[in-house]
Amino acid sequence: MEVKLAFVGFGNVARAFARMLESRRALLDSRYSIQIRVKGIATARHGSIITPTEIDLLEVVDLVERGQSLVSTNGASECADSLGLIERCDADVVFETSPLNPTDGEPAVSYIRRALERGISVVTANKGPIAFAYRELAGLAKQRAVHFRFEGTVMDGAPVFNLAELCLPGVKVTGFSGVLNSTTNLVLTRMEEGASFDQALEEARALGVTEADSAHDIDGWDAAVKTVALANVLMNADARPNDVSRRGIRGITVQEVKAAGQSSRATRLVSRAELIGSELKLSVAPEQVASASPMGAARGTSNVLVLNTDLMGDIAIFETDPGVQQTAYALLSDLLTICASVRNS
Amino acid sequence: MEVKLAFVGFGNVARAFARMLESRRALLDSRYSIQIRVKGIATARHGSIITPTEIDLLEVVDLVERGQSLVSTNGASECADSLGLIERCDADVVFETSPLNPTDGEPAVSYIRRALERGISVVTANKGPIAFAYRELAGLAKQRAVHFRFEGTVMDGAPVFNLAELCLPGVKVTGFSGVLNSTTNLVLTRMEEGASFDQALEEARALGVTEADSAHDIDGWDAAVKTVALANVLMNADARPNDVSRRGIRGITVQEVKAAGQSSRATRLVSRAELIGSELKLSVAPEQVASASPMGAARGTSNVLVLNTDLMGDIAIFETDPGVQQTAYALLSDLLTICASVRNS
Repeated sequence: MEVKLAFVGFGNVARAFARMLESRRALLDSRYSIQIRVKGIATARHGSIITPTEIDLLEVVDLVERGQSLVSTNGASECADSLGLIERCDADVVFETSPLNPTDGEPAVSYIRRALERGISVVTANKGPIAFAYRELAGLAKQRAVHFRFEGTVMDGAPVFNLAELCLPGVKVTGFSGVLNSTTNLVLTRMEEGASFDQALEEARALGVTEADSAHDIDGWDAAVKTVALANVLMNADARPNDVSRRGIRGITVQEVKAAGQSSRATRLVSRAELIGSELKLSVAPEQVASASPMGAARGTSNVLVLNTDLMGDIAIFETDPGVQQTAYALLSDLLTICASVRNS
Repeated sequence: MEVKLAFVGFGNVARAFARMLESRRALLDSRYSIQIRVKGIATARHGSIITPTEIDLLEVVDLVERGQSLVSTNGASECADSLGLIERCDADVVFETSPLNPTDGEPAVSYIRRALERGISVVTANKGPIAFAYRELAGLAKQRAVHFRFEGTVMDGAPVFNLAELCLPGVKVTGFSGVLNSTTNLVLTRMEEGASFDQALEEARALGVTEADSAHDIDGWDAAVKTVALANVLMNADARPNDVSRRGIRGITVQEVKAAGQSSRATRLVSRAELIGSELKLSVAPEQVASASPMGAARGTSNVLVLNTDLMGDIAIFETDPGVQQTAYALLSDLLTICASVRNS
């Protein structure tokens, strides 16, 4: 089974995924009978390329990391931009990893819409489109009989959407709570250990886990966008980030956080979805949870999601100290899920 | 899609599953286009029945719970025993829920083998066959192109086997650790709160979470069997319960457990699989873990499994206070997974 790929966005995550793909070519072939072939790559700062043959992924990873343009890549021709690539490329799956726009999810929403309209499956690690246009995009994918997957948008490659879809058949998710933003969680954990807010935030920046604008983390926007993405997919909501009652961690003091820690409690920025009657209430706010609980156990950059369900009570999925490798895996996981589904259909 | 079912064993779990099936008939039909039809039921103490038409599940649940024989059930005829039912029944899926035999997994292994040989898919909640004959039974199922599923054998309906199979494609499980036995965990949690070993065990008995012989819990046999089941399926091992280095919680004192609790640690009966070079080391033993960790957060009857993987680092799945409903859901989950697979093939 030959699978033709195109990349819209080629930042850290996409490049880590490219390396993972290259290092697993033999496994993909032997275990899954998948041969991948890269047909185009669009970047914001290194040009965009397309080819009728095949692009050498490691060559373009190397060019980008040396700060060079892709347009000299062997056998490829230049292409205007991301939309130009989507319009013209001969791909089965587009990997969309452009940066988050927390205001309206654009231009990623338009990229994904156009790819799906052209009958190309889409894998995205960008939570904006799930928070702003999930219902439309999922409907479009269904109508065109292609795939739209986005496991990496919440908790990196730890299965949250796939867990509910593939492992909990017949189960209704009635609510959830979780620690979904690594930056704020690292800051709160370090403050519990005595660091100042600014020291802790600097440490998160050095680890590379913060959003481009760290205010998006600190003020709870990243968590709010993820909360909406989860509610839209797992609870069939049609919410937007502005529907979330949102309070970040900006005002929190070291004294508060340490005092909680000394009484077996831990301060966490908690995302919640609760059905109150028929109304869905979404919130992001600091809470003091028991240290010896799934949310309390999420320390540092770790994340956790607790699903409340009808048939299975509460179950939680927990991700330990995620990095770019885990987000890259989300893309591989989505690719393999699509291939398995194509093979079975 | 009509699906014909037979039950081998009709204890608490099977009856809870029967009630769940009946209460979801409309959902099964509308969402999954599945119409179920029960063709036979074998019990240890209430007789065994088979029918060319259909058995009323709620009628037999009621008969068993009133201590009566099934042989008078409307439209059904008597059948010798479990093997007799398996030999003669016209079923697509057999639900095997006979009690655990921790010595060799029999007679469940023979029941499952015979059903698979006849081309009948099998769902089991019995961990014995996975610990003693997984490789043979999975091979047989593959050869006969039928399904063999067993999500309920470890952590009830919380996805562990399905998580690895369906949500972590391309990932290699390199080891695991977990709290898998509810009885010992409830005992340890209550001892931390000051109860005696005997009081705590009595509480577990009253909750109905203990094995028929609670020594199987206390001496770590149940945890060892689950450890082997996980290793055989997730790590392609071919181990047996006697291969597990096993120490239970019998000698543990309230003083030890309380002292750990006072220094932010928690005593847990931990199942472990570790690859040391190419050798797989399996163990069950009490450990003191951090209270604010996934294993520490598993209090009372809760369970947790931490998977160590190559591409995704450590991820954990956590089940809160499971009961018979959660094990019953495992059977429903396996049934729906089989139906989805049949539909796609």
